[in-house]
Amino acid sequence: MNAPLPAVSTLPKFQPKDPAFAARVRASFARQQAMVLIGARLTAVEPGYTEISLPYRPELTQQKAYVHGGILGMIADSACGYAAYSLMPATSSLVTVEYKINILAPAKSDLVARGKVIRPGRTLSIARGDVYAADGTHVASMLQTLMMLADTPDTPEDAA
Amino acid sequence: MNAPLPAVSTLPKFQPKDPAFAARVRASFARQQAMVLIGARLTAVEPGYTEISLPYRPELTQQKAYVHGGILGMIADSACGYAAYSLMPATSSLVTVEYKINILAPAKSDLVARGKVIRPGRTLSIARGDVYAADGTHVASMLQTLMMLADTPDTPEDAA
Amino acid sequence: MNAPLPAVSTLPKFQPKDPAFAARVRASFARQQAMVLIGARLTAVEPGYTEISLPYRPELTQQKAYVHGGILGMIADSACGYAAYSLMPATSSLVTVEYKINILAPAKSDLVARGKVIRPGRTLSIARGDVYAADGTHVASMLQTLMMLADTPDTPEDAA
Amino acid sequence: MNAPLPAVSTLPKFQPKDPAFAARVRASFARQQAMVLIGARLTAVEPGYTEISLPYRPELTQQKAYVHGGILGMIADSACGYAAYSLMPATSSLVTVEYKINILAPAKSDLVARGKVIRPGRTLSIARGDVYAADGTHVASMLQTLMMLADTPDTPEDAA
Repeated sequence: MNAPLPAVSTLPKFQPKDPAFAARVRASFARQQAMVLIGARLTAVEPGYTEISLPYRPELTQQKAYVHGGILGMIADSACGYAAYSLMPATSSLVTVEYKINILAPAKSDLVARGKVIRPGRTLSIARGDVYAADGTHVASMLQTLMMLADTPDTPEDAA
Repeated sequence: MNAPLPAVSTLPKFQPKDPAFAARVRASFARQQAMVLIGARLTAVEPGYTEISLPYRPELTQQKAYVHGGILGMIADSACGYAAYSLMPATSSLVTVEYKINILAPAKSDLVARGKVIRPGRTLSIARGDVYAADGTHVASMLQTLMMLADTPDTPEDAA
Repeated sequence: MNAPLPAVSTLPKFQPKDPAFAARVRASFARQQAMVLIGARLTAVEPGYTEISLPYRPELTQQKAYVHGGILGMIADSACGYAAYSLMPATSSLVTVEYKINILAPAKSDLVARGKVIRPGRTLSIARGDVYAADGTHVASMLQTLMMLADTPDTPEDAA
Repeated sequence: MNAPLPAVSTLPKFQPKDPAFAARVRASFARQQAMVLIGARLTAVEPGYTEISLPYRPELTQQKAYVHGGILGMIADSACGYAAYSLMPATSSLVTVEYKINILAPAKSDLVARGKVIRPGRTLSIARGDVYAADGTHVASMLQTLMMLADTPDTPEDAA
């Protein structure tokens, strides 16, 4: 996607606890079958930051052919979650506690969701997510709370 | 689904402006291709209230095989939106302004999302959504703001 | 206040861990100088539920003489927080992680804020708050996340 | 306050509809008696941006002597609201629809709340608020929805 997105200004300068954080985030994302279902791809992983790209498809739309607001929430949720997960120890997993999303403009195009940690914490992390359309339109903004589960596998229990 | 869900207590007593509200809501829901994608069905429509059922499928899960938090948001978003839409005039359409969802428990089962209008308004409506698992577990709670677009078709523009 | 408020239906049935929870909640509330500043009083404490009453005063208003939206947030925040605190062990304290509030109607009257736990947890609790005017009007609705701090005094550090 | 606050990067470039926006915003703020009650001052007004300063006082605190979370909400609410109001026509007034705030760190110091419009709209505007402590600590982050009321006085009705 060659979108004229705004520059990722003020990217947080975080020191990841796990040097292999990017591979770990990518492996976890690959287990999110819901991302496969909607056709989302993880297109950037930095410490405290990730980007998810979602090509437009009619299957993702609501009644007026715009991308469903819940789909916007899905990609922003995962982008924020993995931004936070990138800073966590290799032995942890995490859960979404809550998120709030404002839908700023209807979207009928490819999308990019950017998640950024604004406060990493021992137990709770707070992240901000922003969704942009291919033409740079700011489509949605999210504020999210995540909780780290120390020493808990990030895989299905029955697979452990 | 024969779930021991809590009773739908305190169902609001609203007088719909459009006597054909239920058919209109069902027709609009049927145009939400994103609901088809995830396998969600609209299983109840009352004035100011709707219910959406979602059978569990591995395709809906995150990395630990629980239903993705964004999917919980999707069904609660649509349930709240159609609860509000049921009270609007036949000539209107609506958009989601924002929503906030707390995830109360991880879910690995069939789900029901219930949306209920808590304040209908001329321009803005506020709705509450709750998602329950098949065993009655309260899985998520949402608070949502919707905006009515007067005299605007609830169909894709290019199809109007 | 002889307000025709809606019945406190579906009051949660919680078993407090601390039999002296009500006295502990009242003592903590009494240390909230911000509640004294605005004239708020704690008028009910049950397991997982509290009620805060706020008489109308011009000092609490915004530019149009309605009670300031931030004041609505303050009393709902404290009502939810103490609802959660009532269920916690005597040796803990708690912090507000986040809250979201919808303002449903402007208010120019005495107010009551009700906080109710919807999910008590070991670390995180989720509560719902509702603010009503003296005539029963539903003024605001809140969804809030709180975090328990185990074995931490609920008093100023320098006083410990 | 000589605080090492982060630079106000990416200040939005908005063209105010009302050339006298700053005076109008200041006059409206001066009518917010709740801001007087807590000792808050409006210390910057730009198109789509305002800043509110709040000196620390024990009267603003919760049970552990930190500034009450509701007080953080109050100043962020007003900062966001006036950021949006600065872009509106002189004949309009506005109401807060809803806000969500994450409390990122406890605060026991002077505070600054910055409100910034992220999407101005004909009816609804979305703003982001951030609260900082005197030492630059990021204390809270808000996402807020506001509604413009066209041709409605921004003064008490009985005074019109």
